[in-house]
Amino acid sequence: MELLKKVKEGIKPLDREIMEEASARVDNLTKPLGSLGRLEGMAVRLCGITGCLKPDLGKKALIVMAADNGVYSEGVAAYPQQVTALIAKAMVDGTAGAGVFAGMQGVRVKVIDIGMKEPLEYGSIINRRIMAGTANMAEGPAMTRNQAVQAIETGIQAVFEAVADGSQIVATGEVGIGNTTTSSAVLAVLEGLNPVETTGKGAGLGHSGLEAKVKVVERAIRINKPDPGDAIDVIGKVGGLDIAGMAGIYLGAAYSRIPVVVDGFISSVAALAAARINPLSLEYMFPSHISDEKAGKLVLERLGLKPYLDLEMRLGEGSGAVLGLNIIEAAAGMIAGMKTFDEMGIKK
Amino acid sequence: MELLKKVKEGIKPLDREIMEEASARVDNLTKPLGSLGRLEGMAVRLCGITGCLKPDLGKKALIVMAADNGVYSEGVAAYPQQVTALIAKAMVDGTAGAGVFAGMQGVRVKVIDIGMKEPLEYGSIINRRIMAGTANMAEGPAMTRNQAVQAIETGIQAVFEAVADGSQIVATGEVGIGNTTTSSAVLAVLEGLNPVETTGKGAGLGHSGLEAKVKVVERAIRINKPDPGDAIDVIGKVGGLDIAGMAGIYLGAAYSRIPVVVDGFISSVAALAAARINPLSLEYMFPSHISDEKAGKLVLERLGLKPYLDLEMRLGEGSGAVLGLNIIEAAAGMIAGMKTFDEMGIKK
Repeated sequence: MELLKKVKEGIKPLDREIMEEASARVDNLTKPLGSLGRLEGMAVRLCGITGCLKPDLGKKALIVMAADNGVYSEGVAAYPQQVTALIAKAMVDGTAGAGVFAGMQGVRVKVIDIGMKEPLEYGSIINRRIMAGTANMAEGPAMTRNQAVQAIETGIQAVFEAVADGSQIVATGEVGIGNTTTSSAVLAVLEGLNPVETTGKGAGLGHSGLEAKVKVVERAIRINKPDPGDAIDVIGKVGGLDIAGMAGIYLGAAYSRIPVVVDGFISSVAALAAARINPLSLEYMFPSHISDEKAGKLVLERLGLKPYLDLEMRLGEGSGAVLGLNIIEAAAGMIAGMKTFDEMGIKK
Repeated sequence: MELLKKVKEGIKPLDREIMEEASARVDNLTKPLGSLGRLEGMAVRLCGITGCLKPDLGKKALIVMAADNGVYSEGVAAYPQQVTALIAKAMVDGTAGAGVFAGMQGVRVKVIDIGMKEPLEYGSIINRRIMAGTANMAEGPAMTRNQAVQAIETGIQAVFEAVADGSQIVATGEVGIGNTTTSSAVLAVLEGLNPVETTGKGAGLGHSGLEAKVKVVERAIRINKPDPGDAIDVIGKVGGLDIAGMAGIYLGAAYSRIPVVVDGFISSVAALAAARINPLSLEYMFPSHISDEKAGKLVLERLGLKPYLDLEMRLGEGSGAVLGLNIIEAAAGMIAGMKTFDEMGIKK
């Protein structure tokens, strides 16, 4: 609780002074004015985040929160619950989707067991278990408020450790069967939306499966009555440990003044929760791709983030965020590596 | 002429047999069916191109065609003509936009002087000059048919050399003040469009500049009467050496069975010309970003290519194509690096 309080209160706005300087430099780089489009605004923001005119994002990390969800027992998922652990293992081995992309692009991967059903000692998986999977939110709160805070603080701590290891930008990812269901519930509550609008097919439900999933989300909200004005209450009652952990990553990154990359639907919902806890954290977030999950677009719009990539992906794991890292790194490279007309001795 | 003929006639369709095998493998990778979206189709196509179930695209090259355009003297450009050579130099130094991105992402850059106004001996610039800039297309043909063929063959040769150096995928780029004007003319003729639809502000013309540019494009077409059914005639009369060279890159890549990445507007127009010379070349092309130049979207639509990146860029140089390389490489990594459910011992 102390850590969350410290971080929540310690997040500062971006450095506007250096952003003005960065903006002037971007306009003087040897290219037609504005011709690098959205990379230009990204670069200015990266300067404001890092407090540096030539930001270096060469050291990249993907932090993956692995957790199980009690709501699985309602039959909301297309895959068996054991897949959470199997994918967590494959992530460590570098054979899961996001792990493959991370390996190709020099991104360090940290997989955190924040509460899978069974403890998993495997390779580099980091044990930060809060509980053995959440309770079934369709019958009562998924976790206690205290557990939700602990999970958020686990995410904060993970960023602090990544920064201590030299990481200059972090991407968010998750593994957890049932987590589109929890994300749909959190989104519905935080934004006051009907679960029909926020609930999609996840990893591959059919039509009747989707109808049942919507009903489960409705029931979870009805039974738990989460307070829409209190994001921690919402995450604790109808969310998941992965969502809480990722919310912590966003807050920890903002506190640490490093950029953080949003992945798909679940990661975006966690970003929304973080932005409710402290809206300044939004200034440190970068989108990556537009998820093909039903409400993926909606939640990014609510965050005011416009994705860079359109690949119709819906894998999760941080797979889209890893692909986005390069684009954000390119924006940093633009301002750090290109020369100005003055430096080239060209009169504009 | 011999080389172009050989390449034009030697381009083969993709290997459908291996594509079927690849498709089955993609469906069995440890991920929800279809969850890697457009990467999946990309991976299948990459297998069909390379004839390999686990394609390796680790060695990447950007080939940049640098050329000057006689139509510059009509006042169609926002920047002085000397900028062509200055940017070509900055590309070699790694300080031009695309050069910076290429350096960050391990992409080898080859800058070819295919016909800048003045010969430029500088660093690694490769001298393949066809002429000292084209003639003014608003007064007569930009070049002879023979010169157009030579320029196309220069592009083919450049790919052959890149492949001999080990490159497994190539991106296309260009530098050349005045080349949005020539591209607008080529696009208008090839697609039977009004120059008003194909002509945009380029590097930054104002309203009256744009009106004048449209008139120049109209005049060039009226005076030269290029044959819409003969892409070489069109490129020669109202195109540029860079467009011809890039068309050659597309044809050479298809002949060499390696994937080739389209950049923005100018590069897309060259792709359209290549596709007219041999439609099979289209199967080897991958889009990257959607250019912010007026007809950027239109020409990609005509090619049937849907871009992956939306960054509102309009720099050229191959800057968008370089950013796209990683995405295409990720698709290859997906099929080469992920395991199937069988390999993981999971029953679906």
